[in-house]
Amino acid sequence: MMGSSGNTESKVVKGDAGYVLEDVPHLTDYIADLQTYPNPLQMNPAYLVVKQYFVNEDDTVAQKIVVHKNGPRGTHFRRAGPRQKVYFESDEVHACIVTCGGLCPGLNTVIREIVCGLYHMYGVNKILGIDGGYRGFYSKNTVTLTPKVVYDIHKRGGTILGTSRGGHDTSKIVDSIQDHGISQVYVIGGDGTQKGAAVIYEELRRRGLKVAVAGIPKTIDNDIPVIDKSFGFDTAVEEAQRAINAAHVEAESSENGIGVVKLMGRYSGFIAMYATLASRDVDCCLIPESPFYLEGKGGLLKFIEKRLKENGHMVIVVAEGAGQDRVSESLQSMDDQDASGNKLLQDVGLWISHKIKDHFAKHQKTVINLKYIDPTYMIRAIPSNASDNVYCTLLAHSAIHGAMAGYTGFTVGPVNGRHAYIPFHRITETPNKVVISDRMWARLLSSTNQPSFLSSKDIYEAKDEEGPPTQLLDGEYCKDTSQ
Amino acid sequence: MMGSSGNTESKVVKGDAGYVLEDVPHLTDYIADLQTYPNPLQMNPAYLVVKQYFVNEDDTVAQKIVVHKNGPRGTHFRRAGPRQKVYFESDEVHACIVTCGGLCPGLNTVIREIVCGLYHMYGVNKILGIDGGYRGFYSKNTVTLTPKVVYDIHKRGGTILGTSRGGHDTSKIVDSIQDHGISQVYVIGGDGTQKGAAVIYEELRRRGLKVAVAGIPKTIDNDIPVIDKSFGFDTAVEEAQRAINAAHVEAESSENGIGVVKLMGRYSGFIAMYATLASRDVDCCLIPESPFYLEGKGGLLKFIEKRLKENGHMVIVVAEGAGQDRVSESLQSMDDQDASGNKLLQDVGLWISHKIKDHFAKHQKTVINLKYIDPTYMIRAIPSNASDNVYCTLLAHSAIHGAMAGYTGFTVGPVNGRHAYIPFHRITETPNKVVISDRMWARLLSSTNQPSFLSSKDIYEAKDEEGPPTQLLDGEYCKDTSQ
Amino acid sequence: MMGSSGNTESKVVKGDAGYVLEDVPHLTDYIADLQTYPNPLQMNPAYLVVKQYFVNEDDTVAQKIVVHKNGPRGTHFRRAGPRQKVYFESDEVHACIVTCGGLCPGLNTVIREIVCGLYHMYGVNKILGIDGGYRGFYSKNTVTLTPKVVYDIHKRGGTILGTSRGGHDTSKIVDSIQDHGISQVYVIGGDGTQKGAAVIYEELRRRGLKVAVAGIPKTIDNDIPVIDKSFGFDTAVEEAQRAINAAHVEAESSENGIGVVKLMGRYSGFIAMYATLASRDVDCCLIPESPFYLEGKGGLLKFIEKRLKENGHMVIVVAEGAGQDRVSESLQSMDDQDASGNKLLQDVGLWISHKIKDHFAKHQKTVINLKYIDPTYMIRAIPSNASDNVYCTLLAHSAIHGAMAGYTGFTVGPVNGRHAYIPFHRITETPNKVVISDRMWARLLSSTNQPSFLSSKDIYEAKDEEGPPTQLLDGEYCKDTSQ
Amino acid sequence: MMGSSGNTESKVVKGDAGYVLEDVPHLTDYIADLQTYPNPLQMNPAYLVVKQYFVNEDDTVAQKIVVHKNGPRGTHFRRAGPRQKVYFESDEVHACIVTCGGLCPGLNTVIREIVCGLYHMYGVNKILGIDGGYRGFYSKNTVTLTPKVVYDIHKRGGTILGTSRGGHDTSKIVDSIQDHGISQVYVIGGDGTQKGAAVIYEELRRRGLKVAVAGIPKTIDNDIPVIDKSFGFDTAVEEAQRAINAAHVEAESSENGIGVVKLMGRYSGFIAMYATLASRDVDCCLIPESPFYLEGKGGLLKFIEKRLKENGHMVIVVAEGAGQDRVSESLQSMDDQDASGNKLLQDVGLWISHKIKDHFAKHQKTVINLKYIDPTYMIRAIPSNASDNVYCTLLAHSAIHGAMAGYTGFTVGPVNGRHAYIPFHRITETPNKVVISDRMWARLLSSTNQPSFLSSKDIYEAKDEEGPPTQLLDGEYCKDTSQ
Repeated sequence: MMGSSGNTESKVVKGDAGYVLEDVPHLTDYIADLQTYPNPLQMNPAYLVVKQYFVNEDDTVAQKIVVHKNGPRGTHFRRAGPRQKVYFESDEVHACIVTCGGLCPGLNTVIREIVCGLYHMYGVNKILGIDGGYRGFYSKNTVTLTPKVVYDIHKRGGTILGTSRGGHDTSKIVDSIQDHGISQVYVIGGDGTQKGAAVIYEELRRRGLKVAVAGIPKTIDNDIPVIDKSFGFDTAVEEAQRAINAAHVEAESSENGIGVVKLMGRYSGFIAMYATLASRDVDCCLIPESPFYLEGKGGLLKFIEKRLKENGHMVIVVAEGAGQDRVSESLQSMDDQDASGNKLLQDVGLWISHKIKDHFAKHQKTVINLKYIDPTYMIRAIPSNASDNVYCTLLAHSAIHGAMAGYTGFTVGPVNGRHAYIPFHRITETPNKVVISDRMWARLLSSTNQPSFLSSKDIYEAKDEEGPPTQLLDGEYCKDTSQ
Repeated sequence: MMGSSGNTESKVVKGDAGYVLEDVPHLTDYIADLQTYPNPLQMNPAYLVVKQYFVNEDDTVAQKIVVHKNGPRGTHFRRAGPRQKVYFESDEVHACIVTCGGLCPGLNTVIREIVCGLYHMYGVNKILGIDGGYRGFYSKNTVTLTPKVVYDIHKRGGTILGTSRGGHDTSKIVDSIQDHGISQVYVIGGDGTQKGAAVIYEELRRRGLKVAVAGIPKTIDNDIPVIDKSFGFDTAVEEAQRAINAAHVEAESSENGIGVVKLMGRYSGFIAMYATLASRDVDCCLIPESPFYLEGKGGLLKFIEKRLKENGHMVIVVAEGAGQDRVSESLQSMDDQDASGNKLLQDVGLWISHKIKDHFAKHQKTVINLKYIDPTYMIRAIPSNASDNVYCTLLAHSAIHGAMAGYTGFTVGPVNGRHAYIPFHRITETPNKVVISDRMWARLLSSTNQPSFLSSKDIYEAKDEEGPPTQLLDGEYCKDTSQ
Repeated sequence: MMGSSGNTESKVVKGDAGYVLEDVPHLTDYIADLQTYPNPLQMNPAYLVVKQYFVNEDDTVAQKIVVHKNGPRGTHFRRAGPRQKVYFESDEVHACIVTCGGLCPGLNTVIREIVCGLYHMYGVNKILGIDGGYRGFYSKNTVTLTPKVVYDIHKRGGTILGTSRGGHDTSKIVDSIQDHGISQVYVIGGDGTQKGAAVIYEELRRRGLKVAVAGIPKTIDNDIPVIDKSFGFDTAVEEAQRAINAAHVEAESSENGIGVVKLMGRYSGFIAMYATLASRDVDCCLIPESPFYLEGKGGLLKFIEKRLKENGHMVIVVAEGAGQDRVSESLQSMDDQDASGNKLLQDVGLWISHKIKDHFAKHQKTVINLKYIDPTYMIRAIPSNASDNVYCTLLAHSAIHGAMAGYTGFTVGPVNGRHAYIPFHRITETPNKVVISDRMWARLLSSTNQPSFLSSKDIYEAKDEEGPPTQLLDGEYCKDTSQ
Repeated sequence: MMGSSGNTESKVVKGDAGYVLEDVPHLTDYIADLQTYPNPLQMNPAYLVVKQYFVNEDDTVAQKIVVHKNGPRGTHFRRAGPRQKVYFESDEVHACIVTCGGLCPGLNTVIREIVCGLYHMYGVNKILGIDGGYRGFYSKNTVTLTPKVVYDIHKRGGTILGTSRGGHDTSKIVDSIQDHGISQVYVIGGDGTQKGAAVIYEELRRRGLKVAVAGIPKTIDNDIPVIDKSFGFDTAVEEAQRAINAAHVEAESSENGIGVVKLMGRYSGFIAMYATLASRDVDCCLIPESPFYLEGKGGLLKFIEKRLKENGHMVIVVAEGAGQDRVSESLQSMDDQDASGNKLLQDVGLWISHKIKDHFAKHQKTVINLKYIDPTYMIRAIPSNASDNVYCTLLAHSAIHGAMAGYTGFTVGPVNGRHAYIPFHRITETPNKVVISDRMWARLLSSTNQPSFLSSKDIYEAKDEEGPPTQLLDGEYCKDTSQ
């Protein structure tokens, strides 16, 4: 009966003045007569001074924040935080944590804070780590997690639980959850992982099990929609500066020096864009969202020639997913798939380096010195910075409060700065992307002075893509956090 | 008629459902018949692709974001960003930039981006740097600022313009502005500096001069209200980790080792709180907002004894303004004032270290090893990290767009993630403080397990301080960014 | 009968052409008929390829390296390294490790490498850690050390064994050694600690015990004579740059900005000197070896006035032991002693800051902005860098090879790049100091352009202090590693 | 008449007890009646206090330091340092500086210190920078270098002069030297560059020109013989830790995780070896000096299988020149040459990653997760650390003192810690290599527990390669700095 992920019908509530609440599932949606308990935080000395112990059940967070005097209010999400009543007794809770997908700074911090939060805030002490991603539910031993075990893991990169990509068997996972008597499942992972969590939730619901499933969205690329940004992103942009700086030094030190830096970003160029804006040493930034071409007028190669003539050197930042159509066209080898089902993207950094060298070797007399830097794994493996550490703490606590309060099938994250519970399908439908018709991208183009690679026709269409501007007056804005 | 700062009458606009707009002044408020010009951004190739060149004049940013279904809408601010019409021709603009107060990571980035933004976005090329803070307007030579001069200053800490604290003569400053023919004044500084900017704006208004005054709020302590956070704060918290980590290592390596770290925060303990939350190596965090006492039951010294008995070592983080009443009481020397008029705070770190040593020397047989670390200047002097770099860019651009659009007497900053123009008086009235009846502080107490130093009476009052909880249902929340 | 440390008569061997060997004691010096065993390294697959398994018993390391064609050869030390025959069976060895004194980057690496070296090279698996310095021998529980326990401690600062300063009871220590059946004692510590180790060795010898005592000299100040440099020194100089850089930024950003940085160095100014040379942002470097004065012509205050007039800002680096006579003279409070018996030095950094502020407040109209930075504990607590890590490994291995070969009462360290065994008394007699009549100090003076604070008479005496230059032709040079 | 580089006949002086001095050329070797001048350092206030202004003309530095009681004394080099008499008047000196080859941390520091040293010590103010390596002598404009221009370049990576690899025309260079009236040539570069400098020196000598040529050896690989180590090496090893650490985190976080890190080292594996020893997270280190094989018993692939079975993950460090025979054998494409004449080495890191993946895909059921990291340019481009900064200063000063004293055709560097002048041919004859029959390499094998890839025959030969051990008793040791 239930099919693919995201099929759960949405819980939508409407209010005055165009107010819409996209709510998340709750255990009581499918289990009758669940007992509630007073939230143990009330007994916690650290929380004694808190003015309001608990989030008001009516609190919701507005997704639209730039509004007009008399415009509609738009979409809202349920505010995250502790509730007056919880649906689990502390002793009853048996939690598990699983991390999936590529490494991202902050994974260990999230693990640590789920363990410490459950223990210190709710008195929960049965917490399992699933080893090696989803498959670990049925193919590996579990790891017992205690505050002592996780004490200083936030100072290390990676994930102490291990991770894996790719296929898994939902039935076996749910069997394992049932067999272990697990009542709370914390899933840390990206788009595909959250889709998997949605399916696990649906199967648990189908079986009528009192198990809360909470997702913590993880993507170093920052391509999760709705939430303000994903954890580890800040740390990644910071670390990316090192590679850009090295490329800049190498380029400056040789005649016609070209530094090429490949950064993460399969489908969205946030890391490349922010690293470029933060660094200011970049002459050209290529991202998946903005197509580019090499040859001819307005093409990349002409721009390189021009910039070398002017400055004698240049730095190019390219997101790993940029120009995939060009790469595949020129390589014609798009069949391979990596284990997660993502296209096994050809390395655009090596490809573009080859194309540039080739161009100057064949068509130009100019000798160039191209240095290619791929800092991907050096970025993914570092520990999270202070800002991400605090952020990971809040994500973990939000997830815990939600699960204890009986919510399930939800993911957590800040919406305009306030943490909220968001239905899975809202963050897995379409990835967050750099909006190239947004001022932030224009700001980048202005700072690098690179070509836009767009024809007049492109520009016309870009502007029109979400309909005529007049419709925008109702307050429906593309997400432009800049101003 | 103009009096002290903040006296300008507020421009308040009301709308449906409790909507309130706290608007900022505009040159047309006191100058009639000002000519407007098309915004030159329309001609800028980097901005060609932008769907909407300009911020809609009706866009406002909501201060309240956690709302109820049918609750009132509350306060809003004018959205920052470029406008269709500008009130200055590019050639006509003569801008100046001044930095005041203590060092803060990101000062040079803001300077750089005002210069580059004016030049690249609006074609402005007459930009002066004022040397050494407000007094530099009349006591020093100016510095010519060009994109080339500021090219890589964002990689250096400090401010290339120099800075100073303390008194200045508003009349002389405005004379100097008039004499130099300056038409845009960019003021980067803290609370006192923004108050000064408000007075300068009022005097310019009194003289009827077409000069826009834009403030960029700077405070490493993050004690500016309304805006989400101040620039340099992230960088400061990150760097503070080093000191905490060192204190932790020192404490762990000796018997009854106590590491004491003093961090910035005269009136608000944000740096201390966030550094403690990010680090997790801290046993006790003392901030100005939360009074503490040394002696007796529930006091700090008993807690230290207890923690040393349990763990053999401990780390204390103390914000510079914590326990000032205790310090002054015991030192009785509160007459001194530093040049800015702030009380010359006694060094609480040295004071508390002395008190602890004294206690264990006199009343205990325990030999302790106390190490005191004051990383203040090492934190203030570092360059801003990537995240702050991008943030500084947005602040600078917001300020420029506002001034070009004829707004004046305003400061800029993000409100719930969206940049807005805010009247001076709103950010200088009362400092932003850590709310100790807020979940974030409870989270800290929970993570350190330190005493709250509050009596039952305190707790009762803390909870009641903003009136009975029922009033809170209308959506008026204290700022709790956590959840 | 045995008296103070260093009383053991020296083992001196003479050879041709002025060759002198200052040898170290051996267990066979006082125990007859000790059995020897083949070195187990011969069975170690990793060492199979080594051309010469073992150091030739006749290998010695020359202390004099700058020599004349027909000059005398001078002092030599026994070369460190594995010997053909060892005096302990692997099973018989019961080793212990103790760390004493202040923290120094690399302590954990030395501990790790003694444990892993004993285990992997010699098959030793009974290794105890003594908790909290010398006193731990009789007042604390011991810690069992295995390769697993020490696996990644080299990535952490501090010492996992804890440390303490000050007095201890040699008899109790030797009793404890005897009671635990310990046969090898590894002592990591500074001057005082090595003296203590000498006394322990003498007592063990008096009791006729087959226990080898090996010292690993530790002093962040680099004031150990004979050896090339002490571990952690490189790391400390590197880290000191941060503080100097911060002082420089602070000084540059304010009018008449003065940055004062206090660095480690009670009796020798190596850290201050090398940090100054490496940084090049320093205007004046004050060290214990070079007296200075504040007032009058050629004094520090006049120099500051001059430099502020020229540049508008300046950076002063002061070693903690600089100007102690001046400090004590002005404070008259030299009675206090810290636990180790060192004079409790007054904080020269605070003292000099006060004096400078006072001078400009009283005698000058100039307003100065002085910022004082004391990075001491932040430097001491960091992990060792790569270069120190490798160096610590070699020290540990040298000590192990020596103890296994039956040497005792010795310390280890590189002499002109080659590791050697050195009698305790040679490194505890007189501290290593910066030679201010050496080209390295002249190089510093030349780079800072600071006054030498010396009268003509001083200069004359400095040059003459080791006799007339003609005597130097015999090859006896002060240690000038520069050229 | 003059032929290839290194043909200059050696200046060899013999003394007592087997003493040999390998001297460097002097301008007076081929120019008669050169006038001398008193060294201006005598007038320099910073040097007033120096006991001995000048290095004694008879000072020589011993290459052999591990000696026997009555063994021969061996090779010596002329000690570096200032001389009583100089052969250039300050006004007469017209110096030039050129940097060649790949980037290396410290290049800018050497440039800075030559400029500042010439200016401050000898009053020289005519200093040219040659742009872009040797070819810049005749194909580019020169750059005027002053202390102000180079003031803070040591804080930046790269070389402000630019660099290039490969062919150049000696005649044109010497013409240019003659045309510009240059009298001192400072050449910073590696093996090939120093050979080029030798030929330039010979041509200058042939033309009878009073021009001193001083080389400063630069090679990030540390493959220069005779000298203790090359500048930038320490910094490079430090930075390499980052990549190894990232590889370790990535490997640990996935099932059968393999991290492969390629480090610099075309012909010698010092960076790989020291980074491995410093890090201790490496399971296998492959260097050019130690051949390895993939397949079969004792091969790399079997070792990987074994280590994955034991630990579940592993880290491999491979020097870029390791296994070149294997690579070329399997790729059969050895014809390419890069511009400098070095073989364009195939990327062994990519090759070995491919081979490992292939092996496990084809022959094993094990799914592995291999991550390849190439930090080469990120290492080359960083600024030098404090230790290298001081070292670069000494190199620059040694070169200056030598040139001023009339020496030419020499290179500089520390020999057993003392700076010396070394004839070009001694450092270009044979590269410095990791001696795999040395204890340092055994130490590495012992720490990684990797196979030695040697047959019994190899081991026998390795041990015998420099003849039977008995001959070693004469004091002729391979360079083993370890003990």
